[in-house]
Parts: sequence; C-alpha cells; structure tokens
Amino acid sequence: GRQADNDLYINQAIVFIEDAIQYRSINHRVDSKSLWLYRWYYSRTCQWILSLTITVILAVAFIEEPSSLTVTSDVRYRLPAWNPPCGLTESLELLCFLVFVGDVSVKSYLIGWKEFWKNKWLMAYILTLIVSLTDWIVSLSFFCTESLRIRRILRPFFLLQNSSMMKKTLKSINSTLPEMASVLLLLALHLSLFTMFAMLLFARTKDNQQDKEWVVYFRNLPDSLTSLLVLLTTANNPDVMIPAYSKNRAYSIFFILFTVLGNLFLMNLLTAIIYNQFRGYLLKSVQSSLFRRRLGVRAAFEVLSSLKDTPANAQQSYVSTEALQQVLQKVEMDSRCKQAIMRSLKMCSCDQLSAAQFQKLFEELDKDAIKQHPPSPEYQSHFMQKLQFAFGHPYFGYLGNVVALANIISICVVLVMDADKQPSERDDFFLGAINCFFILYYMLEMLLKVLAMGLRRYLSYPSHRFDGLLTVILLILEIATFAVYGFPHPGWRPEFMGLLSLWDMVRLVNMLIVFRFLRIIPNMKFMALVVTTLLDLVKNLRAFAGILLVVFYAFAITGIMLFKGAVVPLGNTRYKGNKFNTFVFSLWLNSFLQNVLSWCSADFQAEGMCCLLYLLSFNLICRWAKIYFVAWWLISSVIWVNLFVALLLENFIHKWDRRCHRESLSDIEYQRTVELMFRDVLEEPAEEELMEKLHQHPHLHLCR
Amino acid sequence: GRQADNDLYINQAIVFIEDAIQYRSINHRVDSKSLWLYRWYYSRTCQWILSLTITVILAVAFIEEPSSLTVTSDVRYRLPAWNPPCGLTESLELLCFLVFVGDVSVKSYLIGWKEFWKNKWLMAYILTLIVSLTDWIVSLSFFCTESLRIRRILRPFFLLQNSSMMKKTLKSINSTLPEMASVLLLLALHLSLFTMFAMLLFARTKDNQQDKEWVVYFRNLPDSLTSLLVLLTTANNPDVMIPAYSKNRAYSIFFILFTVLGNLFLMNLLTAIIYNQFRGYLLKSVQSSLFRRRLGVRAAFEVLSSLKDTPANAQQSYVSTEALQQVLQKVEMDSRCKQAIMRSLKMCSCDQLSAAQFQKLFEELDKDAIKQHPPSPEYQSHFMQKLQFAFGHPYFGYLGNVVALANIISICVVLVMDADKQPSERDDFFLGAINCFFILYYMLEMLLKVLAMGLRRYLSYPSHRFDGLLTVILLILEIATFAVYGFPHPGWRPEFMGLLSLWDMVRLVNMLIVFRFLRIIPNMKFMALVVTTLLDLVKNLRAFAGILLVVFYAFAITGIMLFKGAVVPLGNTRYKGNKFNTFVFSLWLNSFLQNVLSWCSADFQAEGMCCLLYLLSFNLICRWAKIYFVAWWLISSVIWVNLFVALLLENFIHKWDRRCHRESLSDIEYQRTVELMFRDVLEEPAEEELMEKLHQHPHLHLCR
Repeated sequence: GRQADNDLYINQAIVFIEDAIQYRSINHRVDSKSLWLYRWYYSRTCQWILSLTITVILAVAFIEEPSSLTVTSDVRYRLPAWNPPCGLTESLELLCFLVFVGDVSVKSYLIGWKEFWKNKWLMAYILTLIVSLTDWIVSLSFFCTESLRIRRILRPFFLLQNSSMMKKTLKSINSTLPEMASVLLLLALHLSLFTMFAMLLFARTKDNQQDKEWVVYFRNLPDSLTSLLVLLTTANNPDVMIPAYSKNRAYSIFFILFTVLGNLFLMNLLTAIIYNQFRGYLLKSVQSSLFRRRLGVRAAFEVLSSLKDTPANAQQSYVSTEALQQVLQKVEMDSRCKQAIMRSLKMCSCDQLSAAQFQKLFEELDKDAIKQHPPSPEYQSHFMQKLQFAFGHPYFGYLGNVVALANIISICVVLVMDADKQPSERDDFFLGAINCFFILYYMLEMLLKVLAMGLRRYLSYPSHRFDGLLTVILLILEIATFAVYGFPHPGWRPEFMGLLSLWDMVRLVNMLIVFRFLRIIPNMKFMALVVTTLLDLVKNLRAFAGILLVVFYAFAITGIMLFKGAVVPLGNTRYKGNKFNTFVFSLWLNSFLQNVLSWCSADFQAEGMCCLLYLLSFNLICRWAKIYFVAWWLISSVIWVNLFVALLLENFIHKWDRRCHRESLSDIEYQRTVELMFRDVLEEPAEEELMEKLHQHPHLHLCR
Repeated sequence: GRQADNDLYINQAIVFIEDAIQYRSINHRVDSKSLWLYRWYYSRTCQWILSLTITVILAVAFIEEPSSLTVTSDVRYRLPAWNPPCGLTESLELLCFLVFVGDVSVKSYLIGWKEFWKNKWLMAYILTLIVSLTDWIVSLSFFCTESLRIRRILRPFFLLQNSSMMKKTLKSINSTLPEMASVLLLLALHLSLFTMFAMLLFARTKDNQQDKEWVVYFRNLPDSLTSLLVLLTTANNPDVMIPAYSKNRAYSIFFILFTVLGNLFLMNLLTAIIYNQFRGYLLKSVQSSLFRRRLGVRAAFEVLSSLKDTPANAQQSYVSTEALQQVLQKVEMDSRCKQAIMRSLKMCSCDQLSAAQFQKLFEELDKDAIKQHPPSPEYQSHFMQKLQFAFGHPYFGYLGNVVALANIISICVVLVMDADKQPSERDDFFLGAINCFFILYYMLEMLLKVLAMGLRRYLSYPSHRFDGLLTVILLILEIATFAVYGFPHPGWRPEFMGLLSLWDMVRLVNMLIVFRFLRIIPNMKFMALVVTTLLDLVKNLRAFAGILLVVFYAFAITGIMLFKGAVVPLGNTRYKGNKFNTFVFSLWLNSFLQNVLSWCSADFQAEGMCCLLYLLSFNLICRWAKIYFVAWWLISSVIWVNLFVALLLENFIHKWDRRCHRESLSDIEYQRTVELMFRDVLEEPAEEELMEKLHQHPHLHLCR
C-alpha cells in the first residue's frame, strides 16, 4: 500500500545517507528486507565481529605448530614453545571460516546476482574459502601431521578483501607496475653487464696472493651476481672493493661507477617514477570518495522526492522538510553534524527542498569540525583571578618546559657519572632526591593549571592530557617507591623488595620523565607541523601498511615452509668464532621467520637480508633462499620504501603549501582529514554525472 | 667624431649580443678600451687559461708533501711516494696566484669601482688571494717545513668563484638551510631522547652474562650516542640489537621505533623538505637566464638605434638592417644560428627594424637545433638499391643486436664453465674462435651499414659512432692477437709475449664486447628516455658536483691536517685478526684522505664513515675525528644525496610530462638543453622591466 511504499522510501533514504556518510557504494539491493540486512551487516557490532575474526585467523600463526614465539630468540637458551593440541587451532579456524562464509553470502546477496559475476574480488573470496576449507578437511583427516598447509598463505587475503582502501591502493600499485618493471629490468641489465665485467676484470691469476678479490667475491657467476647485488644495497660497500683496491687504486673506478649508476641513478629513478605515478593518487581517491558522498545524498533525494504524499511537481522534484526530518532522526551519524543539519533545516523555514538545497544541507558533513575548548572558570575573588592570570599564562607552561629540561639534564649528568660504576657501588640517593623534588613540582604545576583553566578545559588539550597522565603515573610510582623503600637518604640502595627493585623503579621513573619531555612539541611551530604531517601520514598509510602486512604474512609463511628444520641449535663453542658465523645465521633466520612484529621496518629487512645474502654467498645453503630474500628485499625495501617516500612527499608538500596560505588561522585547531586537505582542489561532480550513475543503479528504478 | 662614436656603438652592440648568447650580465664598462679588454677576457683562450690554472692549483694536492698517491693503497706494500723538492709546487702555486691576481684586477676594473664595493664575491676573492700569498711567503721563509698551510683549504674557493651557476646554486642551498636545520634539530632531539632511553633500558646489571648490550653498545653517553647514530645510517643495523634481542624479543620494539621514526620518517622528511624548496629552483634559474638574454639583445638594440646616421624618429626608435649585418659579422656565435638570422634578415626585406622585430630575429638562439641526418646515397644499380633497402632496414639493426646478445651469452657460458679451472688448465681456443667469428660479423655489419647509409649518414648517429668505434678497436685487437699468437687452435694458450698476454687480450676483447652491447639502448624506448634523463641530469648537476668537489676538497685537506701521522704501517701479524682491526682502519683512513677520485660517490662515504665510526666507538682514538666524520656524513650523504634526488625528481617529472605531450614528435632528435625543457612554462620579460634594468646600468647612459 501507500504507507508501505512510503516506509520503504524512507528506509532507502536512510540507507543512502548512511552510505554517503561512510563513502560507501550505493549499488546494493533496496527492498525492505535487504535494507534491514544491509543496515545490520554494516552495523558496528557486525563489522567489529568481522574485524575480530580476521585478527584471530591472522594471529593463529603465532601459536600454530612451526611457530615458536618465546621470550628469547636465542636457540640455545629458549624453552620449547607451547604446542597446541591437534584440533584447537583447527576449530578456531573453522569458526573463522564460518563467519567468512556468512560474510560472503550476505555480501553476494546484497549486491545481487548480476553484479556478483562482475565482482572479481567476491569470486576470489569464494574461491579462497573453498580452497581453505578443503585444506582444512585434509588437515584434520591427517590428524594435523600433513607437511603443507596452503590455507596459511591464503589467510592475508581475508584482510585484503575487507578494506576498500586497500583494494584501491592495490589497483594504484598495479597501474605503476609496468614503469617499475622497466626500471627493474634496467637494474637487472646494469647488474648483469657489470657482473660480466667484474668476472673478466677479477679473474683468477697464477699468483695466489694476488687474487683475493676473485676468491672472496667473484669466484663464479652466482657469487659475482650476489656480491654486486649486495653492493647495490650498500651492505658490503667498503669490504667488497678492499682486496682489489689495495692491489691497485684504479680498481675503485669500477666500484664507483657501479655504485653511482646503480644506487644514485637507477634507485633514485625508481623513487622518481613511483612519485610521478603516485602524485595524483591521493587526490583521485579523495575525488572518488566525494563522488560517492554526493551520489548517496542525491539518491536519498530522489527516493524521498517520489514519496506519494508530495504534490507532484511538473518539472522539478522536491522533498518535504518533514520527510527529511523523519529520515534524519533515524540515520546513524555524528551527533554534531546531525544537530547542525537540523538547525539549518529549521532556519531555512521552507516546506520543500530542491535538489541543490538538499545537497547544500549535507555539505555540513564535509566541514571542518572546529574544536572549541570549554571556557575557563570565572572566579569572584580578586586573588583567584590574579592566580588564574598567572598560571593560565603561556609563560607558566614555558617555565614547566624549562623545569622538565633541567630534570632531563640532571638525569643525563647522573647517567654519565654512574656510567662505569659497578651496580653495587651505585647510590640512588642523589637521583631519588632530585626526582622527588621535580615530581612535586610537576604535581604542583598540574594542580595550578587545573585551578586556572578548570578541569574540563585542561583535559580538552591533548598536550595537557599527556602531561597530566604522565604526572599522575610518576606520582603513583614515587609514592609506591617511598612506601616500599622509605624516603631517600645517603646509601639508599636496599635489596630487592616487592615487584621491582629500587633501581628498576628509579629507572622507570627516569624513562617516564624523558618521555614526558615530548610535551614541548606543540610549543615549537616547525615541530608541530612535522608531527601533524606524520600523524596525517599514518592515517593515509593504513592501506599501505595493510598491504605490507599481507605481503609480509605471505612471505613469513612461505619462509617457515621453506626453511623448516634449517635452524638447529648449535653448541656454545662455535659462538666465539668470527662475526658472520652459523650462529648469527640461525639467529637471524629464526628471528626473521618467527617474529612478525620485529619485521615491520623495511630498512631493517634490507639489512638483515644483506647479512643473510652475505652468508649465503659463502655457505651456499640453498639457491632458492637467495631468490626468496631478493624478492623480499625488492618488495619490502625498494618498492615499499619508495611508495612511502612518494606519499610523504605528497602529504608534506600539500601541508606546507596550506601552512603558507593560512598562517593567520593557525591558532584554530582543525580536525584534519585527507578529504579536507584537498578541499580547495576537489571538483564537485556535475548533476548529469550523478543522475547517469543513479539510472545505472542495478536495483533502484527511479520513476523518471 | 661621428665615426668614432658609431664604431663604439657597433662594438657595444657586438658585446651585448655576445653577452646575450652566453647569458652574461651586461653590467660592465662600455668604453672602447674596456670593451676590447672585455672581449679579450671572455675570449676562449683567456677562459681556458683560467680553467687550466684552477685545475692546476687544485691538482697540486696530489703531489704535495702529505699526499702519497701510489698504485696500491696498502700501507704495508706501497713504496714511498715521490716527494717534490721544496720550491717546485710553491713556484707552481705562485704562477697560479699571479694569474688569479690578473683575473681579479680585470674583473674589478670591468665592473667598475662602484659595483666592486657591492660585490661580495670579488672582495672575498681578493681576501683569499691576500691570505694565500701571505701563507705562501711564510711557507717559503720556513723552507716548506711549516706544519700548517691555510692556503690549501682556501683553494676550492677559486673554483667556486669562477662559476656563476655554482654561485647561484650555493645561494639556493643557503635559502634551504633554515628548514634543513629544523629537521636536523628534530633529528638531534630524536637521537638524544632515544640515547637517554637506551642508557636507562640497557643499564649495567649484576649478572655479567646479561649485559652484553651494555658492554658493547651503551657503556657510556658517547658510546650510546655513536651506536644510535650509526643505527641511523643503518650500518650496524642487525648487530646493535642482537644481544638485547636474544635476551628478550620485546627489546626489538625500542630499535624498531628508533629506526622507523628516524630513518623512515625524519630522513625522508628531509628529502621532502629539500624537494619542496628546490621545486622551483631550475625554473627560476632558467627564467633569470632568459631575462639576461633578452636584456642583452635589447641593450644592443638601444645602442644601435642611437647610431648617428639613423634618421631620428619621433616616437619609436629603429635600427637599420645594415648596422645589424655589420654587427652580426663580427659577433662570435654558432654559425648555424648566425646563418639563420642572416637569412631571416634578408627575407624581411625592410630597411629598419623595430625593437620587437629585433628581438624576434634573435629568438633563433632559443630554438631547438633540429638535427638533420645527411641523406643516404642514391644508387643507380637495381641490385645496389635492393641491398640498400635490406641493410638500411631497422630489422638489420635488430639482427645485429641479437648477434651481440648471442656473443655475450657465449662469453657468459665460457666464464661459467671456466670459473673453477686453474689458469694453467684454461684453453682459450673455444672463446678465441667464437670471438673471431663474431668480430667478423660485426665488421661486415658495419661495412654493409656504411654501404647502405653512406659514411656521412652513418657517422651522424651517435649509436653508430659508438658501435663503429668499438668494432674498429675490436678488429685491431683481434688482428694484433693473431699477429703475435697465431690463429686459434686447440691448446691455444702460449706464454706471455708482447705487451699483453693472450689471456689479457682475450679478456680485453670480451670486455669490449660486453661494453658494445650498450648499443641496444636507443632501441628500447623506456631505456632511451631514462638515459636521456640521466644525461640531462648530468648537465644540470655540474654545479652541484662542483660544490661537492669544493666541500670534499676542504674536508680532505682538513682530514690530512688532522690525521697526519695517525696512519702507521702495521706488520702482517695483525691482519689475521678480526674484520674491524686497525689494519682496515688505517687502510680506510688512508684511502679516505689521500684519494680524491675514489670518494666521489656519496653513498660510499656514508658506508666508509660508518665503518670508521664503528671503529672509533671502540677505539676512541679521537673525539674530534667523530665530529669530523659526522659532519662529513651529514653534508655528503644526507644533504647532497637529497639534493640529488630533488633534482632528479624535478628533471624526470618534467621529462615524463613532455614525453606524454609530444609522443608523435619522438622521431625528431632534439638537442635538448635545460632552457628548452622549460620553454612552455617560461615567462617573457616585459618591455618595461627590460628598460628599467637598462636605465639602471652603471656605465651605459642611454639618450632617452
């Protein structure tokens, strides 16, 4: 009936506006039941469960059989890791798979059969699930003793398919691949030509004293290739040329040519190409987000305008304000935005809204949230007002910074003095007394600031929150120290009592004091700019970090499979040998394969890999290992670091330009988002585009 | 008289036009004698003498006393270097100083007294000369035994002041310094906070087994600072965390945080800032060059228009074509340009030229020199025409590339097979026979191409010149080999005869064949783009390289002074010890200080320095050495490499954009210059600006 139709339209409008807020696509089913399912699927609880499931299935690797996450990484000392019984991790996995099956069914249903066949990601999702489940059944039927588990390598896919940002980033990276491949080809050509040159130059001679270079670095083709590849990572940089150079200085020309061409030119060319390809990436992605938002709002307008009780207008369609109010009350959105829209709807004082007016109302969503700090309390007493003026003044904050600096310097002095003392000679009295005084000052500073600004205003500044929290923790630690060890006095170094020794307590306090010194950041303009750039970058980098995690996970699992059993604990005897001995190797391989966290830094990898490559070139344990590590180096260090640099350049240059433009507004705190950063450059989508897209909607059939 | 005035005007016009061609400033004296002196000073001979003098004074360091440039850098084996007798280098220096005194007098005279006081570079030049000459006199009065020679550090200044490009670049770098200093300050803060943290975290414990980390890396403040600084250069990357990591995996978090914040964020931020500051650098410098050119041409127009025999026009001034022709005949310029201007002057067929017409004539200077290859010979015979078609076709070139590839692969195969053979077992027959065949093919290819294209057309392509030259050299080598060692036959490995052994001959031939393979570059589009970008970059980089040379020279001389006598030859006994022993140290210090050439690569330095820093942290030879090397690392590796990346990004992005614009024109070879790269973006200076600048000329007083 009419009421049912109207309810449907209202519900559609609600969902479309929620889509607009979340920058989601509106291409889903729009009948009543599907809408309910859709809202339920995108509800916070459902999405939270999905994220949890993904985290769980990725985390299973830490307790699964070939992993051995222990406190120490030293194979000689560590205890055998806990091995979960067969069936425990498997049942966890099954639970996760069931959630994924539910996820894929709901998703497929919601976008509809026709769209499903066009969506490659969904098909890959289903395929992955089928393969994983089959592998799981095989696993159980062997009672967990099978050697190969394909489903492990497939796990990161679940993370990938769940994030639209990551899928978009992957697409961008994909489009950069041809250019990157060209440079990599060039790099390969460079490497191979120089390898041949090197082999001809450093050939074996009759005099055995003279061919050190040949023996160590250029004995055969794989060795030469490895030596020069490692030179490209600059890991063996002076060493590789020392034997030849000590024979004749002119040999250095070969190495300099190789380094300048390879490292300085080709590697930086890769940076240039990646930057060039990624220059528009952020803008494009923000532009498409804007399009989705406008499209969602427009779709809501269109369905609301077809409400039956609206007088049908000949040419233009209108939406009644009542209907919009009804929709707004049910939409889940930021309460500040909702109130602002409601307010402007009331101020408008018209019954009907045109499409343009409707869009204008929702532009509130794009606006900066200007953060307003609560006002300071107003004191009656003249004395209190004077106090408030004194302690609310920025100079009081600067004084606090100076005191913190003095504290750090005193700690530093004590550290330098105590550097060579035996633990038994150490006297904690001096530092204890000093810290006691400083912490009292910090508490006083905090209390006076709260007095001057009022608690709510004090807490509204992030720098004050940081400061206050650390002060409170320091105070608690100090009180605990005094409660256990008494007040500081000369010779204040009692034995171990309670949870931590006095020494540890003092160290912890000192560390916190050093950490607290970071409160100076907002007071230095350039530093504040840098820190906000970095924070923005972290936001934009989530997709990249996710992709790195996916790649890393796949690599780590492959590594575990490849090198299972390659690491054997060796006796203490061999440890005293040279630096690059088998012990370090096993240690590295071990840490490399089993500790995901310690491998997040790409630079790290390069270095570790070089160390490994270096070893491998001598030991020739496995040719495959070389290929594996070179691939890892290329992906994690070369490509990812360059992507990072490109993103940083883009972010920083935009930020810098903006800073120059609005120097005057700098005292207003904006809650910056990527969308806002580009607001001046973004193009509003044309109405025709929006309508064309709406008419292409697979499930919504507009009357006109 | 009138004729004398006219001659002066003509001469002024000639000089102004030459200034315009060379992008020189026109602010110099303009009387007859000064003009003669000016032309003489900027004549090719004079400038060549000046460059030679600068080269000589810089090269003196290679033979001077504390230097010991020998074939081997190994202090154990090398012979004592030749020490020139007292007075030899000194008299060379005096000669150079006299040339510089002449140079500075002429320059000062030419720009005039008033301008001289404004020119800080000239004053610094005179000051440097006075200090150098005083130092020289002191040196001689001590019979060359004085310990300190200040004039050595001042030498690179002569290089700096002679290049306007370098002065301009230095100014740009100078304007970037505040931002760089901010990031460096941030880096210093980062380093010091983490150092304190590390010292608190890795403190000495009672258990000596447990505090390896403390003993090796964080024993006291300087050690800790050094460890973390070296970690910033990633030189000691895995090693520094191994002891702590093998105790507890969680310690790695500290190192990861440090590396991510320091290396990934702050170091790349430096890149971003330098790129941001340098984005406009090239454009600005090209824009100011354009202004100088237009100003020179305009000045020439103005002086020619005041020639007495021109009918004085009321409003507009004109220049007679006759006068211009007279000027053009005397101007030294590219003959192609001169002819083009003459031609368009004739085509104009008007008696008088307005200012706009005059400027338009000289726009020929800005134009691309479109390189036209001479035509192929036209053969009468049908057979010859067919031959010409076959061997002039690109496919014949591709066939040549395939053959070259086959040759390289065959060499590679032989190298792999011979890798482990003793030199006495080696048989050069196979490779000799193969190379003989291939070189015959190369000769045939060259001859056929010359037949098809004609010699002049063949030589007009750089790739053919490269190819042909190498083929001729290979042919000569092969003939020489056969002449000395006979034709290849099994067991073809006779003893050493003539200049080179057969083995060396074959190796040389192989190296040349590998080198010849680079002829494929122009056939691959992307590679050609990359190579032309790199070549362009090298052109634009001359100023940067010059500044690097200046900095390097000063550093090397300071180093020689600081570390004189620190390197003592050690016996063979200690060489067998660990890798980082005193021998390597002395070797490195030695190579570092005495070999300018081997230190051109900045990456190289960083690595060498790290190795040194690593050593220094253990040996604590000298605190000053640390500061010296850190400064060197910052300047050469951090700042210079980032400048290089900025320039590369700028160049490459422009090039890339241009490639996309004129895909169609790609078969026309342009002789690209920086000026042309930016032509689309450059702004023509306004007439008012030009005239204002002309009226500010200190020596030229225009009538109006």
